[in-house]
Amino acid sequence: MSAVAAPAVILVHPQLGENIGSAARAMLNCGLTELRLVAPRQGRINARAYAMASGATEVLDRATIFPDVASAIADLHWVYATTARPREMIKPVATPRHAAVEIRGHIAAGDRVGILFGPERTGLESDDVALAQTIISAPLNPQFSSLNLGQAVLLVAWEWLMSGDSTPPLAMVTGRTRPATREEMVGLFDHLEAELDDAGYFANIEHKRATMVRNLRNSFQRGPMLEQDVRTLRGVIKALANGRPRTKRRPRGWKPPPSQQD
Amino acid sequence: MSAVAAPAVILVHPQLGENIGSAARAMLNCGLTELRLVAPRQGRINARAYAMASGATEVLDRATIFPDVASAIADLHWVYATTARPREMIKPVATPRHAAVEIRGHIAAGDRVGILFGPERTGLESDDVALAQTIISAPLNPQFSSLNLGQAVLLVAWEWLMSGDSTPPLAMVTGRTRPATREEMVGLFDHLEAELDDAGYFANIEHKRATMVRNLRNSFQRGPMLEQDVRTLRGVIKALANGRPRTKRRPRGWKPPPSQQD
Repeated sequence: MSAVAAPAVILVHPQLGENIGSAARAMLNCGLTELRLVAPRQGRINARAYAMASGATEVLDRATIFPDVASAIADLHWVYATTARPREMIKPVATPRHAAVEIRGHIAAGDRVGILFGPERTGLESDDVALAQTIISAPLNPQFSSLNLGQAVLLVAWEWLMSGDSTPPLAMVTGRTRPATREEMVGLFDHLEAELDDAGYFANIEHKRATMVRNLRNSFQRGPMLEQDVRTLRGVIKALANGRPRTKRRPRGWKPPPSQQD
Repeated sequence: MSAVAAPAVILVHPQLGENIGSAARAMLNCGLTELRLVAPRQGRINARAYAMASGATEVLDRATIFPDVASAIADLHWVYATTARPREMIKPVATPRHAAVEIRGHIAAGDRVGILFGPERTGLESDDVALAQTIISAPLNPQFSSLNLGQAVLLVAWEWLMSGDSTPPLAMVTGRTRPATREEMVGLFDHLEAELDDAGYFANIEHKRATMVRNLRNSFQRGPMLEQDVRTLRGVIKALANGRPRTKRRPRGWKPPPSQQD
């Protein structure tokens, strides 16, 4: 028994080459490469499948064709059957997300896993579902739950991929810059507030000054501020203030006062 | 400003009617209905779009067409841009799963949200991405990360749907039956073990009996056992034992002994 790193996708009686191709593309998008076909209608993988695979030719080239479901799953230890509608059959029903977690466990134990997808219009027959241990059913819009075959494969393959993914859910791509330090931010605030004082922005509303300064400071911190942003904004402040008449002269060598916390 | 219950899907310069249709189908599968098109190549929603929508005609019928991205997103408060590759642009990058959680928050606050998808081959232009607050990027197979347009819409729509879904991850569909009670299970064990004793199954290996009985009991409890399963299995035991020569006679009215815990 050789351990495989991912589940096999088994398309049972697929009717259209296009759907075989889009399933292959979706599989490779999500790192799955083992495709099995049970008696495809055209009998083989045709040109339309290759066209729709859009470069996922390795998946189609390596695909194997079987005459029936029993032979297609013979070597597997765990078989999942995807169905759109709940059945009268008594069997555990997993969401794609939960099934992916289970499958990770089976694969980690060195077991071979396959996922059955039925023909486009009719879905899997009950006898095929009875050969599987678990049903996968996606909780889609109950008024419109029928997925395209390629879409169904994508959904399950995506959940497989995500179940092993460690991408940060939210990241800032900063390239060659970096987040501003607090010192840089305080420098920006001091610069801005000194220029506003100088322009008479707070004149006659001194009693509101503290609140307005806090609001201003918060407005510059709604999202991540980068070192580059601070430099740009200081240039903007300088450009806007440049040549403006000064309300009062400052001594030569004057620097903005240090920021105050409150 | 009217609150909407779900984000709008905005296809920027879609090239093929088929992809508009499969996007519409994927949207409706996941409960999304607001489709906006920016200057689609055919200028309108054609017959191939309707064919691929496979019944999601309401989404296509209600779709609105805009001349450019700025007008298509004018009324929105939060715009997400889907891209396959990381950009030089400095912007937060969210997984589809995280973006869905964020979008739920915006929608709950009564804000309008849209998600931009670029043209098939080229993806969104940087100027379009710059109009969005956040990038959505799916952490797909880095060697084969280009999704079909309809597939990209499905992925994001699915994560939107899942972020608000409360389906039990794993459920047993039992129909008109129910899980067996512990009493019914013990009745099954006692019945089986009594018949095995009677058949001489444990003869000469009395010292292993306790272990074998535990293994047998465990093997019947690998998965959920239903009341119906217990009835069926007791019928099976009875049928197999029926007419078999008895190793010893039992008094009339004999019942299996109560189970022992150890």
